[in-house]
Amino acid sequence: MPDNGCFTLTVSCPDRVGIVARVSEFLARHGGWIVEASHHADPDLARFFMRQQIAVDSLPFDVQTFRARFAKIASEFHMDWHITDSRIKKRVVIMVSNLGHCLYDLLGRWRSGELNIDIPCVISNHEIFRSFVEWHGIPFHLIPVDPERKDMAFQEVTDLFDEAHGDVLVLARYMQVLTPEMCDRYPGQIINIHHSFLPGFIGARPYHQAYDRGVKLVGATCHYVTSELDQGPIIEQDVIRVDHSDGPTELVRSGRDVEKSVLARGLRYHLEDRVILNGSKTVVFR
Amino acid sequence: MPDNGCFTLTVSCPDRVGIVARVSEFLARHGGWIVEASHHADPDLARFFMRQQIAVDSLPFDVQTFRARFAKIASEFHMDWHITDSRIKKRVVIMVSNLGHCLYDLLGRWRSGELNIDIPCVISNHEIFRSFVEWHGIPFHLIPVDPERKDMAFQEVTDLFDEAHGDVLVLARYMQVLTPEMCDRYPGQIINIHHSFLPGFIGARPYHQAYDRGVKLVGATCHYVTSELDQGPIIEQDVIRVDHSDGPTELVRSGRDVEKSVLARGLRYHLEDRVILNGSKTVVFR
Amino acid sequence: MPDNGCFTLTVSCPDRVGIVARVSEFLARHGGWIVEASHHADPDLARFFMRQQIAVDSLPFDVQTFRARFAKIASEFHMDWHITDSRIKKRVVIMVSNLGHCLYDLLGRWRSGELNIDIPCVISNHEIFRSFVEWHGIPFHLIPVDPERKDMAFQEVTDLFDEAHGDVLVLARYMQVLTPEMCDRYPGQIINIHHSFLPGFIGARPYHQAYDRGVKLVGATCHYVTSELDQGPIIEQDVIRVDHSDGPTELVRSGRDVEKSVLARGLRYHLEDRVILNGSKTVVFR
Amino acid sequence: MPDNGCFTLTVSCPDRVGIVARVSEFLARHGGWIVEASHHADPDLARFFMRQQIAVDSLPFDVQTFRARFAKIASEFHMDWHITDSRIKKRVVIMVSNLGHCLYDLLGRWRSGELNIDIPCVISNHEIFRSFVEWHGIPFHLIPVDPERKDMAFQEVTDLFDEAHGDVLVLARYMQVLTPEMCDRYPGQIINIHHSFLPGFIGARPYHQAYDRGVKLVGATCHYVTSELDQGPIIEQDVIRVDHSDGPTELVRSGRDVEKSVLARGLRYHLEDRVILNGSKTVVFR
Repeated sequence: MPDNGCFTLTVSCPDRVGIVARVSEFLARHGGWIVEASHHADPDLARFFMRQQIAVDSLPFDVQTFRARFAKIASEFHMDWHITDSRIKKRVVIMVSNLGHCLYDLLGRWRSGELNIDIPCVISNHEIFRSFVEWHGIPFHLIPVDPERKDMAFQEVTDLFDEAHGDVLVLARYMQVLTPEMCDRYPGQIINIHHSFLPGFIGARPYHQAYDRGVKLVGATCHYVTSELDQGPIIEQDVIRVDHSDGPTELVRSGRDVEKSVLARGLRYHLEDRVILNGSKTVVFR
Repeated sequence: MPDNGCFTLTVSCPDRVGIVARVSEFLARHGGWIVEASHHADPDLARFFMRQQIAVDSLPFDVQTFRARFAKIASEFHMDWHITDSRIKKRVVIMVSNLGHCLYDLLGRWRSGELNIDIPCVISNHEIFRSFVEWHGIPFHLIPVDPERKDMAFQEVTDLFDEAHGDVLVLARYMQVLTPEMCDRYPGQIINIHHSFLPGFIGARPYHQAYDRGVKLVGATCHYVTSELDQGPIIEQDVIRVDHSDGPTELVRSGRDVEKSVLARGLRYHLEDRVILNGSKTVVFR
Repeated sequence: MPDNGCFTLTVSCPDRVGIVARVSEFLARHGGWIVEASHHADPDLARFFMRQQIAVDSLPFDVQTFRARFAKIASEFHMDWHITDSRIKKRVVIMVSNLGHCLYDLLGRWRSGELNIDIPCVISNHEIFRSFVEWHGIPFHLIPVDPERKDMAFQEVTDLFDEAHGDVLVLARYMQVLTPEMCDRYPGQIINIHHSFLPGFIGARPYHQAYDRGVKLVGATCHYVTSELDQGPIIEQDVIRVDHSDGPTELVRSGRDVEKSVLARGLRYHLEDRVILNGSKTVVFR
Repeated sequence: MPDNGCFTLTVSCPDRVGIVARVSEFLARHGGWIVEASHHADPDLARFFMRQQIAVDSLPFDVQTFRARFAKIASEFHMDWHITDSRIKKRVVIMVSNLGHCLYDLLGRWRSGELNIDIPCVISNHEIFRSFVEWHGIPFHLIPVDPERKDMAFQEVTDLFDEAHGDVLVLARYMQVLTPEMCDRYPGQIINIHHSFLPGFIGARPYHQAYDRGVKLVGATCHYVTSELDQGPIIEQDVIRVDHSDGPTELVRSGRDVEKSVLARGLRYHLEDRVILNGSKTVVFR
C-alpha cells in the first residue's frame, strides 16, 4: 500500500472481450499506477470480476472526479462497480448479544491499529458490554428485542446505522434474527459469523448435535446476511480439530476460537474491497 | 513399538471405580511392560474406554493365554474387549469402483512398508484396475453389480471376504451402496471415505452444489459403514482450502487429495486398534 | 469435568513394571473416580509420564491429605510429581511490552470465563496498557528495563511475582530478555510466545527475512523459558498461510494472529496440567 | 479452462504505468478472451508480474504467431516472458532414489488423468523402482552416482533430459546433490521437495533432531533447485501436526505425507505456469 493511499475499483459485469483493455487504457492514460489487480471470469454465469488498486498520487484527480470520468466506461460495459479511497476510513457498526469473544477480538484489533476503521457505535440487546465498549470511547446503545415488536427494534437499529453513516454492520455473535426488511435494505453490507460443521446440523444446540455425532472438526462461516437465514453468500470459512475427549463445552470453546478468527478475516476482506457478490456466492480476491 | 511386538488390548465397559487398578494389577503381576496407554470416560453414557499396548516379550504367555486369563476380569466388568498381536498382520480387503486415487495411495503405502498389512484381494465392479492390482501380486476380482440382483453381488463379496479371512473391508471410493445385510454382518469392520462440506449438501453432485454455494473449504470424512447410509461413526475428517477460481473440476481434485489422506489416516488408526466404537460415535486414541 | 472439581495428578518417573497398577490401586482403594487419564513412555530416556484427573468428591480426603498419603508411592518410584485442585484458581502474572494482541486476547478469554484464573497483576516496561489493564480491575506495574541495570528490574519482577504468589508468568509479547537467574528460578513456570518460520531465521527482523525468502507459511511457538534464549521446551506450535502478495506488514499481522491463538492454547494446556517436562522437550496430554 | 485449450502468457518486467493497458489492448484487438488473469507488483524491487490465460480459439493465430507478434511489446517493456499452449503436454522427467512415496503419488495422479503431462522417463540411482515404472510403460534409467565421478553421472542425466526434450525435472526424493553445473543449466526447471521444521535443523538426521527438540509440527518445502543447496526459491510449503507420542519413525511417516502433497501442489502450480521467479523468491498465482 503506497504511503499516500489507494483508490480501489471493483467491477462486476457481463464478460466480453476488451474490458481489461478499456479499463487499463483509461488508467494508463491518466498515469494511474496499478498496485494490485485481480480478475476472475465465471464461465457458467458469463460474468467478469475485477479489482484494481491504484496509487492515489499517480492520478491527477480525486475520487469524485474518478467516479465521474469512469462512469462512461462503466455504462458501456453494464458494470456494477464502486470505488473507494483508502484514506477515508470505513464506518463499522458492531452488534453483539451476550457472548463477547468476537467483540473483544475486533476492538483489540482496532486499538492496535490493525483495523483502520471508525466504530461509530456498538448496539446490543444486553447491557453487559456497555462499560467495556464505553471505556474504548465508543457509544453503546441498548436495543432490547421484544419478539412481539421486532420491527420496532430493528427500525431503531436502522436509524442508528443510517445516522452513523455506517458502511458495514457486523453481527459479532448477535443472536437475534434480523427482519427481512433490514436484510434487504443493506445487501452486501451486513456480515455475520456462525458455527459450521461437517456435516451440517439443523436445529437447536448444534454443538451438542456435533458432539453426539462425534465430529472431528468444528468450523465457522462468515457470510453476508440475506433474508434467507444463514444462507447468504460465504466470505470465509475455517475449521479447528477436536476429538472424543472434547465435550460440548470444549467444542463451544474451540468453536469460539475459529469464529473470531474467521470473522476478523472475513471483515478484513470486505473492508479492503476484496469481496464481490456473484449471485449466491462471492469472489474473494485475497 | 518394541522390536518383538506388542499386544494391544482395547476395552469398552460401564464406568466404575477400579477398572484401571484391576487391569493394571493383572498386567503388572505378569511383568507386563506398558508401552502406551490411553483412557477415556464418557460422562453422558457412563462408559469407560481403554487401550493398552504391552510389550510381547515382557509377558510369559502368548495371545491365546492372555485371552483366557483376562476373560475373568472382562466378565467381571462387563467388558466389550479384544486383543491383537502386532506380529500378526491384519488382512485388508479393498473395494474400488472407477476412481483410483485412494487405491493408488493405499498400495503405495503398502509397498513402501508403511502399511504393515496383508491384502488378500481387491474387489471391483469395474475391470480398469485389474492389471495395476495384479502387478502388485494381489488377486483381483470383478463383481459387477446388477441393480436388480444386488444381493447376489454382495453375497459374492461376503464369500470372498470370509474366504480371505478378512479383518477389514476398505471402500476406497467404491460407488455402490452395500446391502443392509452386509453392513450388519461386519460392524466396525467396513471403512468408507466420502466427501464432506460445510455446510453439508444432500443429493447428487455435491461438488457442484458446493461450487454453487461458494464454499471456501472442501473436506472428507472416514467412517464405519452402517446400514444407515453415510451416517456411521466418524473416524477421521479433514478439509482443504478452495476459492472462487476453483470450478467443480478443481473442487473434485482437491476433494480427492483430502479423501486419500483422510482414508489413510483413518485406516491406520483402525489397524493400530486406536478406534473404539461408542454408540453412534468413536473414541480415537491417536 | 465433574461439577465439584478434580484433583489432577501428574507424574514423571523412571519407567518400570507396576507404576500404573500401584497408582490406580491407591486411587481405587479410596474410591477415586478417574475422569481422564493419559500415560506416555519415552523409550529412549526410559521414562514414564502420567496424568490422572480424579473427581474430588469421589475421594474421602482433601488435596493435602492426598499429598501426604501419596508421598510413599511417589518416593518408592522416584517420582517427580505434583497434584492440583481444580477449584483453586491458578495465579497468572502477565508481562507485556508495546504489542497488545496477546494481552487483549488473554484478558478477553479471562473476562468471558474461558480462562478460570486469577490475574494478580500485569507488568510492563511501557505505560501504554495501564488504563486498559486497570479498567479490568487488575493492578498494573511499570518496570522500565535499563540495559545497564537489568538485574535490578528483574529483581523487582521477581519480588512482584513472589508477593503475588504467582503460579505462572506469561510473556505475552514481552520484548526484553530475562536474566538467567530469573529463568533458573522458575523452571517450567515461565511461558513465552514467539514467531517461527520454516526454515528458521536467525537475527533481527525475522519477518523481513521471511519475506525476502518468500516463505508460504508463518508460525508461532509457545515454549517454556530457559536461560538459553528461545530454546526452551516447546509446548505448542502452529502456522498460517501467506503468499507473495503479503509484504512484511501483512506477515507481521498474520504472525500476530497465530501468536495469540498458540499462546492461548499453550497456556491452557499448562493451566490444565497437561504439560510435563521431559528434558529439552515436553509431553503434552491434550 | 475452455474445451479448446488456453495460451498462458507469463511476464515479469520493471514496473511502470501502462503495462496492462498495452498487453490487454493487444489481446483485445485480436479478440483474445481472457479466462484468468493475475497481476502482482513488488514494491521493493519495482518489478511487475503478470499471468494471462487466453482461450485459444478466441485468437486468430497459433502460439508461434502470438510469440512473434508479442515480441515487440515484450521488448518495449523489457519483459522476461514466455507463453505456453495448454494443448501441448509438458514433459516431466522424474528422479528418485530409494523412497517411493512421491513417485507413487505422481504416477497415480498421472494415471488418473489429474496430471496432464508426458513422462518420457524416470531416472534413479537405484534399481528398486524399475519394474513399477516400466509397468506404467515409462522407460527407466539406472544412473549410479560414484562420489568420485559425480560429473559423469550428471552429464548422463543432462543428456537424457535433453534427448527427452524435458520441460521439468522433478526430484521426487532424489537423495544426491546435483552438480552446480546442472543446477545452473536449468534455472526454474528443477523442482525439489524436502522436509522442513519450525525451527529449522541443520545437519544429519533432521527428524531425530526434531524429535529431540519436541516439535509439534513437521513440514515440507517444494522449491526450485539452485546451486546453493536447499536455498532455492520456495514454491509451496505445508505442515502436519505431531505430538510427544510420535517417535522418529512416526515423524518420518508424517513427513512423507506432507512431502508428497506439497510436491504435487508445487508441481501443479509450475505446470500451470502459475509460478514466476522473483530473485530469491517466487510469485505464485494460485
